[in-house]
Formats: sequence, C-alpha cells, structure tokens
Amino acid sequence: MPQFIQLSTRNSAYVAKKLLYYSNLRTRYYSTVKTDVILRLWHLKTGGGADEHDYSAKSNEQYRVWSAFMNVDNGIPADRINDDALVLRDDKDGVATLTLNRASKFNALSGDLMAELERNLAKIADDVSIRVVILAAHGKAFCAGHDLKELGAKETRADVDSLFRQCTQLMLAVTNLPQPVIAKVDGIATAAGCQLVATCDLAVASSNSRFATSGINVGLFCATPGVALSRNVPRKKAMEMLLTGDFIDSDVALQFGLINQVVERDDLDKAVGELAMKITRHSPKAITMGKSLFYQQINEGLESAYGRAVDTIVDNMIEGEARAGIEAFVAKQPMPDWEDR
Amino acid sequence: MPQFIQLSTRNSAYVAKKLLYYSNLRTRYYSTVKTDVILRLWHLKTGGGADEHDYSAKSNEQYRVWSAFMNVDNGIPADRINDDALVLRDDKDGVATLTLNRASKFNALSGDLMAELERNLAKIADDVSIRVVILAAHGKAFCAGHDLKELGAKETRADVDSLFRQCTQLMLAVTNLPQPVIAKVDGIATAAGCQLVATCDLAVASSNSRFATSGINVGLFCATPGVALSRNVPRKKAMEMLLTGDFIDSDVALQFGLINQVVERDDLDKAVGELAMKITRHSPKAITMGKSLFYQQINEGLESAYGRAVDTIVDNMIEGEARAGIEAFVAKQPMPDWEDR
Amino acid sequence: MPQFIQLSTRNSAYVAKKLLYYSNLRTRYYSTVKTDVILRLWHLKTGGGADEHDYSAKSNEQYRVWSAFMNVDNGIPADRINDDALVLRDDKDGVATLTLNRASKFNALSGDLMAELERNLAKIADDVSIRVVILAAHGKAFCAGHDLKELGAKETRADVDSLFRQCTQLMLAVTNLPQPVIAKVDGIATAAGCQLVATCDLAVASSNSRFATSGINVGLFCATPGVALSRNVPRKKAMEMLLTGDFIDSDVALQFGLINQVVERDDLDKAVGELAMKITRHSPKAITMGKSLFYQQINEGLESAYGRAVDTIVDNMIEGEARAGIEAFVAKQPMPDWEDR
Repeated sequence: MPQFIQLSTRNSAYVAKKLLYYSNLRTRYYSTVKTDVILRLWHLKTGGGADEHDYSAKSNEQYRVWSAFMNVDNGIPADRINDDALVLRDDKDGVATLTLNRASKFNALSGDLMAELERNLAKIADDVSIRVVILAAHGKAFCAGHDLKELGAKETRADVDSLFRQCTQLMLAVTNLPQPVIAKVDGIATAAGCQLVATCDLAVASSNSRFATSGINVGLFCATPGVALSRNVPRKKAMEMLLTGDFIDSDVALQFGLINQVVERDDLDKAVGELAMKITRHSPKAITMGKSLFYQQINEGLESAYGRAVDTIVDNMIEGEARAGIEAFVAKQPMPDWEDR
Repeated sequence: MPQFIQLSTRNSAYVAKKLLYYSNLRTRYYSTVKTDVILRLWHLKTGGGADEHDYSAKSNEQYRVWSAFMNVDNGIPADRINDDALVLRDDKDGVATLTLNRASKFNALSGDLMAELERNLAKIADDVSIRVVILAAHGKAFCAGHDLKELGAKETRADVDSLFRQCTQLMLAVTNLPQPVIAKVDGIATAAGCQLVATCDLAVASSNSRFATSGINVGLFCATPGVALSRNVPRKKAMEMLLTGDFIDSDVALQFGLINQVVERDDLDKAVGELAMKITRHSPKAITMGKSLFYQQINEGLESAYGRAVDTIVDNMIEGEARAGIEAFVAKQPMPDWEDR
Repeated sequence: MPQFIQLSTRNSAYVAKKLLYYSNLRTRYYSTVKTDVILRLWHLKTGGGADEHDYSAKSNEQYRVWSAFMNVDNGIPADRINDDALVLRDDKDGVATLTLNRASKFNALSGDLMAELERNLAKIADDVSIRVVILAAHGKAFCAGHDLKELGAKETRADVDSLFRQCTQLMLAVTNLPQPVIAKVDGIATAAGCQLVATCDLAVASSNSRFATSGINVGLFCATPGVALSRNVPRKKAMEMLLTGDFIDSDVALQFGLINQVVERDDLDKAVGELAMKITRHSPKAITMGKSLFYQQINEGLESAYGRAVDTIVDNMIEGEARAGIEAFVAKQPMPDWEDR
C-alpha cells in the first residue's frame, strides 16, 4: 500500500501540481503524493534520459498507475479512468505510428492529449531510429479539434491563451520534427483536427473522410487552423471553409491540395504504409535537411530562398551521404545503406 | 428655379470641384453651384451621419437632382443623364447586395462608378446590421474592367496614377471591409473586373461566365489585376492569363481557385443567396475578426502568423461570444442569437 | 598548324583556365593555349559585343574548333567530342527556340551546358527582336537534372557550391529575362530539369511527359528544385514529390499548376508555337514590364504589391504604348504595330 512522501525538488513539485491539475482538484494544493506513483515518475525522469517535460508522461503502464492512484484517492469520476494512454506509439521498421486514442471524445485535443502528443513527438525527434511518423487515430473520427468542454471551462484570458499557445506549439513541433509526418485520416477532421492534417507534411485519407474548419458553427472563427489551412489550399477555398464551417470531402481535399491521396478505407493501412516505407528507404540525413529547408524557404523571396537552398544541398553533398549515393548511381550499383541522421 | 450661392467651407469647395469634375467642365473653375443641389448635398452631410466622402454620394434621388442640374445648366450630353445610380444597394435579412448598374458600358469601372462603389462599401462598413455583401452586376457582363475611354483620355501621369490608385483603394476597401464579400458573376469579368472577382472573399459564377486579364490585348499589361489574380490561382495559370489575355471559363476558374462555385445561370440567385444566408447566421464578431486575421497572416512567416492568430482566437473567446456558443454546444442547445459586431 | 601564344590579359587568362578546366587537366596550369582557338575566342570577345562571359561561348563553329583543339592536344576521350553545340538556337518570327542538345546524356545540366544556356539567355536578353523564348530539348528526355557524374567528381565544398550557384544563376536568368520563356516538354523532367520547367513562365507538355524531383533517390534532397517547385504547386504536392522522388504525369502536373497545357506529342510543336505567337503579337514593352512586376510583387504584402503594380501600369500607360492601343480600341481600329521594347 503506497505511502505519502514529501516532494521538494522543483520538478517533483511540478509533477505534483500537474497530477492535481489532471485530477481536477484545482482548489487544493498537495505537496505530497503517493510514493509508488512518484517513484515511477521519478524513475522515468532519472533513468530514461527523459527531461523535465516528463511530468506529463503517460505511457500505458504509467497511465494505469496514475489512473489507479487518482481513482483510489481523489474520487475522480469513473469516466476519467482509462487504461489506455491518450496517444499510443507503435514502432515498426523505422516508422513510428502515433495513434490518437480518445475515440469516445472523437479524439478531441484536450490539453492532456496535446501534451501527450507533443511529448511523443519530442521523444521521436531525438530517436534517430525513427525515419517517418504516421499520425493516426482510433475510432470514428480522426480528430474533432479542441475539447470544447474543456475550452468552455477556461475562465480567464490567460487560461484560454495558454491552451491555444499549447496547440500552436504542438503544430510547430510537427513542422519542426526532423522526420516527415504523414496524417492517416479516416473519418472527420474538424477545426484543430483539420489544422493537424494541414500541418502534417503529407496526408492520406479514406474516401469517407471529411474536413472542416467548423469553429464558426459555435461562434469561434478557426483563426489558428486557418493559418495552416491557408498554406495548403487556394485562398478562396480556405475562406469558404472558414466562413461557412462546411465540410469538404476527400476528393475536394485532394483536388485543392489539403491531402495527397484518397483511397478506400480498406486500403488505407496499405497506402499509408507504402508511402511511409518509401520514405524510410531514403537517406534520413537528406530527408531531415530537406524538410527543414522546405519550410524555411517557402515564405522567402526567390533569391534568399535559393541562397538557403544552395547551402542545404551543398551540406547534403558534403556532410550528408549524397556522394556515396551518386557514386553508386554512376556505377550502376544499389544505393548504400543510409546512416541514421 | 435654383440660385447660385457662394461656397466657403473646405468640404463644400470640394463638392463643387467634384461636381465640376463630373460635369466634364474641367477648364472652368466654379466656386458657386446651384442652391438646391448643394442644400441637398449639405443635408446629406449634416443630417445622415455621412462623412466628407459624401461629395460623391449619388443615391437615386440625389443623382436625379444632380443629373437635372447638370443637364439644365451645363449642357451635358444626353447619354450622361441616367435615372439610375451607378451602383444600386438592396438590403435584405442582413445581406446588402451592391449591383453594378452601368450595363450599357459592361459595368466598366469609371472613376464615378469606383467612387460610388467605394462610398457604398464605406457606408456598409459602418452598418452593423449588414453581415454579408453580395457584389452583383446588371446586364450581360459582370465587369469589363477600367473604362478605356476614360482612361485613354487621361493626359498626365498624375491623372493616370490617380485613377489606378483609386482602383487600388477600392480593392483594398473590399479586403478591409468587416463583412465578407461574395462576387456573384454572370457574364464576363475582365481586367479590373477579374481583379474584383479575385479580390472578393468568395465568388460564385454562372456556368457561362468567363474571366480574363485582357489588358494586354490593348497593350496594357494587367499589372494591378495580376496582384489579386496571382494570390488566387497557381502562378503559371496567372502568368498564362496575364501574358495571353485569353479567357478561362467558369470550370477552369473553379478548378484553380479563382471562384468557389459554378452553377447554372438559373440557379445563381439561389446559390449566392444560400451562401450569404449561411454566413449571416454565424457570429458577426467572429466573422469580422476572422476575415481581418486571414488577410493579415497570409503573407507572414509561420510563427508570426500563429502569434497573430492566437491573439485573434483568444479575443474571439473573451471579447466575442464564442463562450456562449460553446456552452450552448456542450449543453446541446441551439446557438444564441449572435449580437451584431 | 596552330601556334602557342602568351596570354596576359585578365580575361584571356580566365579563358585559358576555363579551357583547361573543361579539358579535365586540372593538375596542370597552362598560361598558353593554341593561337587559333584563342584568336577565335578573341574575335568573339572583341567583335561581337560579347562580354567576359564569352569564355564559355561555344557556338557551333567555335565548339567544333574547341573540340578539335581538345582532341588533338589533350587526349580528351572521344565521347567529349561533339560536333553540335550543347544548346542550339533557332529564331523565327520573334521567337527564339533554345534546344538542349545533349540527348545522349538526357540533357543533363553539366556545367558546360548550363554556361551555354545562360550565355544564350544573356544574348537574348539584349536582343529586342526576340519577344518569346521556347526552351526545348532533343532526345527522349527534356532534362535529367544535374550531371551526376560531374557532380560526384567535385571534390571540394567550394566546387560543389560553385556548381549549384551556377545553376541558381541560370534559373534566376530565366526569371529575370525580359521575354517570357515557355518550356516545351516531351519526356522526363527530373530534379534540376523539373526545376527548369517550374522556373519557366509557362510550360506545355506532351501527354507522355513525367516530372520528378528525384534527387532523393540517390541521397540528395532536391533542395534547389524545391524552391521553384514549391512556388508552382500546393505545398503537400511539392513535399510528396520531394520526399518520395516519385514521378507525376502531365495530367497531374497540369492539375496542380506545374504546367499550363497537355497535348498529344504530335500536337506539341503546334501548341507551343501558337502560344508563343500569341504572345509575340502583344506589346513587348508591356510584356516585359509585366513579367518583371509579376515576380517582384508576388511575395510582398498586398499594399506594397499594389504600390509596385500601380507604378508599373502607369509606366505602361505613359512610357509604353498602351495609350495607342487604347485609342485604337476605342476607335474600333486594329492594334498598332507594337515597337520592340
């Protein structure tokens, strides 16, 4: 049976505050939490090379412990108890699949889910064995955007601001991730969910998927989703989605550039898998340099964009392995086994 | 029978100069104009909340008076007499329809028509009862661009410059209008007429409509229309239209993002009306914040665009009515009656 | 029989170094080269108005002389001997057709070929009789991008950097050329070859043509081609091509804006010819002002873009011949014979 301990370090106090925050017991302040939970968290923090962001770590096991803790001691309503993590990670052949796992809420981007997703991305950013990320979702929806119940309960401007900044950080983390991210969409992607699709480097959707920046339906113009959307599709199409809140289907999304491919639902796993594998076979160094360059140059004038691009392609030749690839090509040999970046 | 009076205020002198300008009697300078016309103008200026831009006001009634004045006293050719205003405004259910009413000239954007359109937009900008604007046109053409007869008659660089600056101001007034503007296109939209379509936030066209930046056909590259066009369609498509002057039809315009929807001519009223009504049902505050944000962020780098968008969406939550909308949504209630912005 | 002469001027030394460079005899430094070759070069430099860039001049005749020189004296492998120039120029009715003429290497952009192409463009830039340029290619490929054998042999960072800067200069020369450039594509256009298509103002392709940024297949992310590509097609489509290296066909290229027209191979000459002729019939001054303006305004904010565009269109009215065109239009007369720019 766990015992209480005193927490004194900055990070541990932060963990405790976060735990209390997650438990919804905001009016009380605990400086103590149960030993076994903290020790497990502590273990993660000290043993796994994780940094202070780990306060939000909720791996399957950890989440189970934490849920049990919350359940026993704080009278959390049963529907907050969930054996599964908010985001699942599954690695295979250099591809990490992150699955939004909040199907009962249409994978709405609660603060917790966003933190969990950003934490996963941060881990993947440091994991050179991962060459491509697939962002998938459980359930009928890909992602319904922000959790409106949570958002509606934010009382101060600072709280609302904090939530949207967290979401922006998440989107920038996708863009800044060294590895390409492929959205695998099956179902609706609305508001910040549509933003997530727009933000991913690539997107493949089932033919029954639909996309909307639907915030305007509840009086909230999708300002932040519009940033990503208007960088994917022509401006009148973006404006139409933002002003009406109407859905577009996968075919229209494909036509205007929001997604790369539409397939039947039964073929979605295969299509996304093949696209991911194709990229894993390319030089990770070149892919990483290239992705970064792409987003840096895209808003620049032509000459400065070229200046930056020349630097990148020369780096790719000199510091990357392009020379080995080119030599193999010229010699009509197979490509080398590319090093991790 | 009207009498001459002396005009002494700055604005009145401006009115007089404008009247003389409209009368084409440019070589003479009158410091006096007829009493009843000025009194009517004066009435508009002091009684209706109108500002100094009202010198160009030509409501139906005023225009009739002004036309009669011009006709009787200045020997204006009969074809300048017109009982209709250059732009008609018709309000219904929060939608203001502005109709270009110079069908005999294919709605060419004469200085007068541009001034009249800008004046109407300025009034609508201050009218919180209007939630959406439809920009329509009488006759066989939507708009044939600048009035080439008028443009060709401009003798000095300053005069030519002034005309194009006026046109630019008009286009920026559409973009800066708090309300969304929908172009309702039935017929040709050429040169600055095509620019007008590109500048509107949304556009619906009949299947027989056609679009061109045709200035190059008379030796005048559509430089200013190209600004709007190249922000709507892919750059090679814009370049093709600008270099050749060729028309594209509605289907191609839809495919490349210049317009949002193509319908049969008989369905145009209905399609535009439904699109407008859909937007009127949304929160005017959110729509206004959103439209403004959209055009501000679109040329920015990703991070500063997001910074701006977060500010907007937080304002929308705190100062707008999004919270009420979200609460209604969470409680499964209908949306509130949105306040005017 | 040619004799050796001493070269002393800066330019001539440069010529000598370049000749040695082209001859692959990098370890030796010659301050002397054969008289007849230099005299011919010298003739070009002093007689033809050519500038110091002429060291790389390889017109048909000159190239033949140079090839013979190289062949006799430096033991250049037979496959470097070529009676044809790397780029052919053929003028007709104000249209200059530049044909990439390195079919055996799929028109790969060797340093020589790029220098030759840039030299041709520089000449055309100064030739007011030329109103449109067609960029075509001999053989099965339009252009296979950089010459990987040459690129792979570059040993130092400076050498690699120099090659990509040369390529960037070539691309900017196309954009900065006063005349519009139409890519006439029949076959594959890969990597920098795809960049060339994206860089041209317009592009027409045969239905069997295919496009790819394929560098990633040999470990080299198409950073510089991506600059042009991402300014032509929606960003997810650009990212897909860059990350996978996969081909798209002409229909997809048309759909997303990389090209303007797809025709059957047998109709390619006719389609490109008609497009070119259409532009030659327009005012060269207007076309030149307009092309330049187009690329200057496209990355600017709306107001500064309009400021620039107004200046251009006013110049076009005042300094160009638009007034004559407009007067002819108003008088229902045919357009004037436009002056050369």
